[in-house]
Amino acid sequence: MTTDEGLKVSARERLLDAAAGLFYRDGVGIGVDALCRAAGVSKRTMYQLFDSKDEVLAASLERRSPAYLALTLPGEDDPGPPRARVLHVFERLEALTAAPEYRGCPFVATAVELKDPGHPASVVARRSKDALTAFFQREAARGGAVEPETLARQLTIVFDGAGSRAVVQGRPLDGLAVATANALLDAAGVA
Amino acid sequence: MTTDEGLKVSARERLLDAAAGLFYRDGVGIGVDALCRAAGVSKRTMYQLFDSKDEVLAASLERRSPAYLALTLPGEDDPGPPRARVLHVFERLEALTAAPEYRGCPFVATAVELKDPGHPASVVARRSKDALTAFFQREAARGGAVEPETLARQLTIVFDGAGSRAVVQGRPLDGLAVATANALLDAAGVA
Repeated sequence: MTTDEGLKVSARERLLDAAAGLFYRDGVGIGVDALCRAAGVSKRTMYQLFDSKDEVLAASLERRSPAYLALTLPGEDDPGPPRARVLHVFERLEALTAAPEYRGCPFVATAVELKDPGHPASVVARRSKDALTAFFQREAARGGAVEPETLARQLTIVFDGAGSRAVVQGRPLDGLAVATANALLDAAGVA
Repeated sequence: MTTDEGLKVSARERLLDAAAGLFYRDGVGIGVDALCRAAGVSKRTMYQLFDSKDEVLAASLERRSPAYLALTLPGEDDPGPPRARVLHVFERLEALTAAPEYRGCPFVATAVELKDPGHPASVVARRSKDALTAFFQREAARGGAVEPETLARQLTIVFDGAGSRAVVQGRPLDGLAVATANALLDAAGVA
């Protein structure tokens, strides 16, 4: 790698990290000027690296996606039983909604704001939510759920609805997400 | 009412109706120019009627709120049993998500986009969601739910999570909202 390429990689990462933070905090309507200012890169550099703001948005969400998922998912080597691993996600969600900077699920927010399922960032959002659903389905199957695929989708809508509720109400959840997940796990026969 | 006052009322209504439609379709970031163009009113008229775009947004959501709620709630004189009246809401939601112009719950979308629980339109959104929760709670109590208030909040997050899922996936629900509501009604002992 030449020095010039190294600088470009670094500008790219700086831009994507700043973008992920800003888009989450202020929404997808953030302008290119504000974006470049926050990242400390010139517009010229941005347009050398990306064709459009839409591409920056998609790439920043993609880059941040594993970290966002890790905020709620248990570790791969967490040895807990399936039910506890599912509930871990909802306990983490409840804790996240208590942070003053919580603005809802970043993937849901992106899709809701873009209103265009074909937008590259909506595609990233969908894939990331599908990863959460896939986690729920694996655990549901391990836990002996009657219909693991259905339970997984139910848990996903509880996760998203609970996150939205914290945003709408402007205050943290108080056990609602965990209680609802528990009720659905019971109904599906997960011990 | 003088003719001049009559014209102003009409401009106000035209503006709020155009605003409600545009904000729902394109998001709260819509500019004042686009708004006035769609409503066929001048910016001067808009600023004679409202102090700011934020006020237009709040007033347009407030004006549209009863119609939005009526899209899913059963009629006041609908004689069905509580469980059927609750399920009606989820059946209507499933149907709404099949419309190409569906962009999620307008109240959730507004709150998620504004990211400011103190914004006047976020206050309207919160009140409107609370009206849905109050409906669920009344029916849950009538239906003998163990904890009507908890069940009502659970049903609200299922409603919102299911609406978000349709947006994220870019396709209609296929029975998931109704199935999840059924599971929670069962768990709460609503016959």
